Amino acid sequence: MSGRLAIVGLGPGATDLLCPRAASALAAATDLVGYGPYLARVTDRPGQHRHGSDNRVEAERARHALALAAAGRTVALVSAGDAGVFGMAAAVFEVIEQGDPRWRELEVVVHPGVSAVLAAAARLGAPFGNDFCVLSLSDNLKPWPLILDRLTAAACAGFALALYNPLSKARPWQLGEALDRLRRHLPGTVPVAFARAISRPDEQVVVTDLATARAEQADMRTLVVVGTAETRIIRRPGHDPWVYTPRSVGRDRAQ
Amino acid sequence: MSGRLAIVGLGPGATDLLCPRAASALAAATDLVGYGPYLARVTDRPGQHRHGSDNRVEAERARHALALAAAGRTVALVSAGDAGVFGMAAAVFEVIEQGDPRWRELEVVVHPGVSAVLAAAARLGAPFGNDFCVLSLSDNLKPWPLILDRLTAAACAGFALALYNPLSKARPWQLGEALDRLRRHLPGTVPVAFARAISRPDEQVVVTDLATARAEQADMRTLVVVGTAETRIIRRPGHDPWVYTPRSVGRDRAQ
Repeated sequence: MSGRLAIVGLGPGATDLLCPRAASALAAATDLVGYGPYLARVTDRPGQHRHGSDNRVEAERARHALALAAAGRTVALVSAGDAGVFGMAAAVFEVIEQGDPRWRELEVVVHPGVSAVLAAAARLGAPFGNDFCVLSLSDNLKPWPLILDRLTAAACAGFALALYNPLSKARPWQLGEALDRLRRHLPGTVPVAFARAISRPDEQVVVTDLATARAEQADMRTLVVVGTAETRIIRRPGHDPWVYTPRSVGRDRAQ
Repeated sequence: MSGRLAIVGLGPGATDLLCPRAASALAAATDLVGYGPYLARVTDRPGQHRHGSDNRVEAERARHALALAAAGRTVALVSAGDAGVFGMAAAVFEVIEQGDPRWRELEVVVHPGVSAVLAAAARLGAPFGNDFCVLSLSDNLKPWPLILDRLTAAACAGFALALYNPLSKARPWQLGEALDRLRRHLPGTVPVAFARAISRPDEQVVVTDLATARAEQADMRTLVVVGTAETRIIRRPGHDPWVYTPRSVGRDRAQ
């Protein structure tokens, strides 16, 4: 089989946060596959075919991209942020493992991108300057009790948390329950940030603490950052505060 | 104060994995500050001042960059990968919090980059396609028992693991002990990958499992990836295998 599939992370949104390698893969494609609003971010090129879909059919989209590649096309499958972090990459490999054995002969390459967690962290300061966990609150693909267990284990062990998919119209209560769970185990003073649509024109950042954080402060485009007991907020008059987690634990700082 | 400090993630190494925004910040700087080998990656520009240092003096390097910015310079402080993930960003904010109060008036911006964890994941397939933790094994800045506790908590809760700073000449035994600890809690079949110098000319990837993984397979430029009980290896004759973690837990796949 001679087809090629590039799984491309588009980054958080701003054009200058798209890696040149990813941009080259997009330019080289004969066919672009992806969720409509993400495809809309990609520069139009004459002769390229676009195959948009809605957001709920990852496996179907992956199969479509693989079938095009198997037919000899040069396909770019796009994903927001980094395709390996709650993006399309895992869906493609799931489908390959269960699908046509000849798909394993295809050239499949994942092009990394700036994930939402890295973009949010950079915008805030350095909340993930020490150990951290990246966790999706969506219970579409895993049981809710498991998500609460992971949240508790990570928080109690002192990891900062990056929470993807905090809520949606179909999942309105999960973030509230997650914050309640965290309040049982962490001090109310732990910094919490809501980082929405980072690097996009409608970017919004709210820095608060665990005691006062409310689920209503997030939507489906928000990454929720929960610090640790050691995470610090540096206030600056007239500017957003900086949020950072020190590199050291239980030692003198700034050595 | 009119000075500016950009904290710039250079990505994993390949030129085409450097974000355009980061490249612009490097081009605009009057002064570049950083660890010598990272500075050497940055294109030479006439008139720019370079301030190299060795690897062990993060706080001193951060102070130097802030002092230059406070003197009105336009400074880029470089970091490998993403500056927010075990890079220079946290060091800068630590030094700001403890230092001259006027440093808070400086324009300090963190430019995100492709971290080693994202580059390694893309090279391997999608090992972080579900929840994961990013953890440094260096006990220079936190107690070793705490690191083992975090490792255990994350592994037992079902997170995949990205292990930074697995070992060095000064810390030769930590990775071996960490793997032994993981073997107590995870099946020996859990995939483990050693991803070294990803995207660099001397890139090396080894995919194995927890039962057979050995600390000697890593060095200080290696990111160690430990999957979960659900992480899969797709073998391909004549090619590196793909490693991925399914998006779902305890459900049918590829829906």
